[in-house]
Amino acid sequence: MFEIKAKDGRGRVGVLKTKHGDVKTPNLMPVIHPRKQTVDVSKYGADIVITNAYLIYKNEDLKEKALDVGLHELINFDGPIMTDSGSFQLSVYGDVEITNKEVIEFQEAIGTDIGTSLDIPTAPYVEREQAEADMEITIERAKEAIDFVRDNDYEMKINSVVQGSTFLDLREKCAKELAKLDADLYPIGAVVPLMEAYHYKDLVDVVMTSVSNMHDSLPRHLMGAGHPMIFALCTAMGCDLFDSAAYILYAEDDRFLTTRGTIKLENLVEMPCSCEVCSKYTPDDLRAMDKEERTQLIAQHNLHVSFGELRLIRQAINEGSLMELVEERCRAHPMLLDALRQLSKYNDNLELYEPRSKKSAFFYTGNESLARPEVLRHVNKIKEMDKKENLVILPHYRKPYTKYMPKDFKKFMCCGEITDESITSENADFMVLDIPFGLIPLELDEVYPLSQNESPRNKDEIAICHASNLLLDIVDDYNQVLIAPKLVNEFDLDTVLDLEEYPYSENVKFIKDDLARVKAVADYQFGNGAGDALFCNDKSKGDLFTGKIKIEKSRKTGKIRHIYAGKDIIVNMRASDSLLILSKLGAKRLHASLGGIQNRVIIDNSVESFARDGKSVFAKFVKDCDENIRSNDEVIIVNEDDDLLAFGKALLSHKEIMDFKTGQAIKTRKGFKK
Amino acid sequence: MFEIKAKDGRGRVGVLKTKHGDVKTPNLMPVIHPRKQTVDVSKYGADIVITNAYLIYKNEDLKEKALDVGLHELINFDGPIMTDSGSFQLSVYGDVEITNKEVIEFQEAIGTDIGTSLDIPTAPYVEREQAEADMEITIERAKEAIDFVRDNDYEMKINSVVQGSTFLDLREKCAKELAKLDADLYPIGAVVPLMEAYHYKDLVDVVMTSVSNMHDSLPRHLMGAGHPMIFALCTAMGCDLFDSAAYILYAEDDRFLTTRGTIKLENLVEMPCSCEVCSKYTPDDLRAMDKEERTQLIAQHNLHVSFGELRLIRQAINEGSLMELVEERCRAHPMLLDALRQLSKYNDNLELYEPRSKKSAFFYTGNESLARPEVLRHVNKIKEMDKKENLVILPHYRKPYTKYMPKDFKKFMCCGEITDESITSENADFMVLDIPFGLIPLELDEVYPLSQNESPRNKDEIAICHASNLLLDIVDDYNQVLIAPKLVNEFDLDTVLDLEEYPYSENVKFIKDDLARVKAVADYQFGNGAGDALFCNDKSKGDLFTGKIKIEKSRKTGKIRHIYAGKDIIVNMRASDSLLILSKLGAKRLHASLGGIQNRVIIDNSVESFARDGKSVFAKFVKDCDENIRSNDEVIIVNEDDDLLAFGKALLSHKEIMDFKTGQAIKTRKGFKK
Repeated sequence: MFEIKAKDGRGRVGVLKTKHGDVKTPNLMPVIHPRKQTVDVSKYGADIVITNAYLIYKNEDLKEKALDVGLHELINFDGPIMTDSGSFQLSVYGDVEITNKEVIEFQEAIGTDIGTSLDIPTAPYVEREQAEADMEITIERAKEAIDFVRDNDYEMKINSVVQGSTFLDLREKCAKELAKLDADLYPIGAVVPLMEAYHYKDLVDVVMTSVSNMHDSLPRHLMGAGHPMIFALCTAMGCDLFDSAAYILYAEDDRFLTTRGTIKLENLVEMPCSCEVCSKYTPDDLRAMDKEERTQLIAQHNLHVSFGELRLIRQAINEGSLMELVEERCRAHPMLLDALRQLSKYNDNLELYEPRSKKSAFFYTGNESLARPEVLRHVNKIKEMDKKENLVILPHYRKPYTKYMPKDFKKFMCCGEITDESITSENADFMVLDIPFGLIPLELDEVYPLSQNESPRNKDEIAICHASNLLLDIVDDYNQVLIAPKLVNEFDLDTVLDLEEYPYSENVKFIKDDLARVKAVADYQFGNGAGDALFCNDKSKGDLFTGKIKIEKSRKTGKIRHIYAGKDIIVNMRASDSLLILSKLGAKRLHASLGGIQNRVIIDNSVESFARDGKSVFAKFVKDCDENIRSNDEVIIVNEDDDLLAFGKALLSHKEIMDFKTGQAIKTRKGFKK
Repeated sequence: MFEIKAKDGRGRVGVLKTKHGDVKTPNLMPVIHPRKQTVDVSKYGADIVITNAYLIYKNEDLKEKALDVGLHELINFDGPIMTDSGSFQLSVYGDVEITNKEVIEFQEAIGTDIGTSLDIPTAPYVEREQAEADMEITIERAKEAIDFVRDNDYEMKINSVVQGSTFLDLREKCAKELAKLDADLYPIGAVVPLMEAYHYKDLVDVVMTSVSNMHDSLPRHLMGAGHPMIFALCTAMGCDLFDSAAYILYAEDDRFLTTRGTIKLENLVEMPCSCEVCSKYTPDDLRAMDKEERTQLIAQHNLHVSFGELRLIRQAINEGSLMELVEERCRAHPMLLDALRQLSKYNDNLELYEPRSKKSAFFYTGNESLARPEVLRHVNKIKEMDKKENLVILPHYRKPYTKYMPKDFKKFMCCGEITDESITSENADFMVLDIPFGLIPLELDEVYPLSQNESPRNKDEIAICHASNLLLDIVDDYNQVLIAPKLVNEFDLDTVLDLEEYPYSENVKFIKDDLARVKAVADYQFGNGAGDALFCNDKSKGDLFTGKIKIEKSRKTGKIRHIYAGKDIIVNMRASDSLLILSKLGAKRLHASLGGIQNRVIIDNSVESFARDGKSVFAKFVKDCDENIRSNDEVIIVNEDDDLLAFGKALLSHKEIMDFKTGQAIKTRKGFKK
């Protein structure tokens, strides 16, 4: 019922299937008042709406009509409708005149697409005892509702709301308990007061704790979130659906929603956006109108802005630039910046969902970008890398670094023992020191995102410190560390390192070596040792590993394109990100050399033949896979006995592959027929 | 012909008057092709357009028609039209078939509103000799053109373009030379290649150097700037007009302009904004259309986005939130962030234009905000402040600080000699340490922007360092410096200061004292000594300074509202920014106490009676004024003999007041009739 079509970090463009049609996510469900709806939201972009089943139930006329003609005719909306259960009324008035079972029964009876059990929304910052007691009831009712829906073969889908107030352990517990049940969607409840008070930092804690314990395979709905200024941030945390009456409530109060905040009409000198309403009218025009007409127009503006932002978010996910959008949006208010900084504390978790390669470059938008998972990932890779005896640290000019690197190095400063041995790529790692990725081995200078990134030439102190700390962390792994004097200055290295002038600079030579380059990329991409295995020509290891290694370059760009063993292609190097694409021989060599579950997706023996035929692998047939797999990784596909069946590109990350029961997990490139 | 209606830093909302109507600035002049215009730009928001007089001149048919029916009918546009002279063609083809005088004559003949002389646009990064030679010709031709226009009593206004390539001293020289002439508008030329190459850092240098040497009283036109992603930044540097054919050229190339950059249709999965076109069509719809229809729609989108952004910029200037918008927009591309950081190098200049108080709060959007002129200004004020013997540094809780300050301080760390004397407001300055303003004396805790600012609770290292450095800078001015232990931790103070536990914490008392508070505000606002002068009750100083000081507070908010001497109000304290508003007695006391030009606007004796009648002061009658005057300052108005005539609020800053020859400079509150 839910499929991921594109992903960027925890953000995903998905499709939610309902009996009234498909919904593209992330999306906003405008709240429809069952009695007094005045705005035709579908005209302004709504694909799905939400209304309140309890309000309909409480009003005799509405109830009768809903039971008679159905919910869709009642509120005059053809698309999917979600209903809430009266929980909000329960939280405000302390009591409702309906039971959990009754409200479930009623929602099915009126034909809702997605119904909700009668959970208990617990406000933020309450006493722990209350939050815990409420949560227990919420879980109980979720169980009762789901059982009821399944036992009676209801058509509607069912929500199970995560509660727990601002107690993160309770949010975790609630999410984990609900995850054991068989719900269709997971809303995250009772966050509206956090958003109203601009407590976005706490919102990040609540949402990240909740989503980290929820299924990746089901849509997540951030209940009551309707302000476009937080859509990008919340999408980046993994939320798929938003709902709100803000578009109309704010309009009634003469307030304009924008991605930068809310503006009151009384403070407007100019219209604040490029929408139809803002292009046609002036603030004075609106002020002169009667209330009703004005409210209609402001509501239209609010919907245009909201759906415009959601389109932009989906576009950003497709491009791989969601975090760039989030980092920009989070400059609109200091409390959003606070939230962005808080989000970086969940970096380990975010990295699990971060694609290996993207269409768009990594943009440094401020020192907050140093905390992005891409940087964390590279830093960890460098730590794990097989190291040579010595290290040479070179300055950065233009990218790719190697292309613009001077051939001879006139002067170096040295840290560690000084010897007069020649320093070449044989006995030394040559790396560039740059922002934001820190240390970049020259062989990897075209690999995504080490080449596909931009940062300002005016460097900030935090970035400088970040880079010098990374260097400091690995200095002890080497005998001699030679550093270009330009860098010593630029990164204040003499304050943290004991440096002496190095007298043998003429002995230092970086030798460009295509084989070394492709081996380094292979190790970076598939794990240490992969390069030697893939690009091996050694009869003693058998036919599979025999054949002269030939590297073919593009005539136009001079970039490496294909690597052969004899006449067979082992791998291709993709021009856009310089990552290796396996071909049959490469897959075989990798499979034969790297043990355990490395780079592997293990599928059910029953679907072996499909894989061998080159058909893509569906998530539900994956028995296990390497926990290091991220979307866009090249993987090898094996059966339960580790027989190589095929190879392809992961569409999802490890955790998602393991959680999804629908949709494709691996786009197979080629299969090995029996 | 040009008046400022609202200002924020160097950004201004102005009105440019032409014979075809008024133009609100900042604004974009879409380029109209005299022969093949297909988009009705006025329908999508254009108030003024630009076209090329040379292209009309070169084409016999167009030339004849233009001379016959006039330019406005030729291009079918009723509003103001600016014309370019063929300089661009000159720069591309090396030569044009027209002289400077001829093109001036022709522009007047066809009825252009604003004409341009035949300047030489010199590309960036050329040889210095060329840039210098071109510039000399440009200046010569500007002189020739202006003389010609004035001698012949031409109706049209005349542009004088600042050139000088990327040589900042040449830009400075050119701007200074042109400023001596009598032009009506100042374009800044030949910056398009910088924008095309994303060399925004260099653009900042060129524009800031140019504008710093141009008249503040004339509109500045950034030639060829048409991408909405840089409008906010360029407005903040003092640009008033932009022009470009980008809306149509990009559309013809299937490219969408957005405030975040350019997107190609082929890469669009979703439409990128909330405009009419983006709300009605999908990328697939556009891809399926014929070229002409698609180009029209993309051009419409481009215009909607451009004019929407300009409205937002004018709104931001009115609110006083222009830099917040700039700091957000500059996150869209690392090279824009580079530009933002470069802009901070012109802080001293920007401070000259920064209003003293604004409607909106100061938002910390990243460590770049620390470099804003408001912060620089406050830091300088604290350095200049009269200091007591000791200093007590308190932590910040909520704002205003005094309200949420604990009464007793349990523990302090001390830097400097420890004595057992009581530390009270008598012998100590009590300040809070906070981000971004650093040290805030408790008496100033409600004064703009020290209270009206927000920053994230997750602090960055640069901000922490900034605050601790400010403390470090003044520690030596005091005997004892007591610091709350919480701060020592938060700001890593023990790494930079020699701290000991202070054993007499019970002796430390901040005594809330309303008189001390208003005196501190007066000193901060009008200069050291102003507080003692304004709030004096001393018969020996004469009647003017006699009368019991009474402080009246708002019953509702508890805030100080009026300060009396006997029955006469000296000053009022404005609720929104806690700055003092002079009344008659206050103005007299200030005038009698503070000598020289302090807080004064000296006006021509010939208009003395208007000021005494309470009429506002026009800029052209100002003979001199205090160089510390900024817009929204309270000032006293005197004649050339320093007789007090009136008092009021500055609408402009010192430099602007001295440069403008039209419009109001001071809104007079009250005059002293003779």
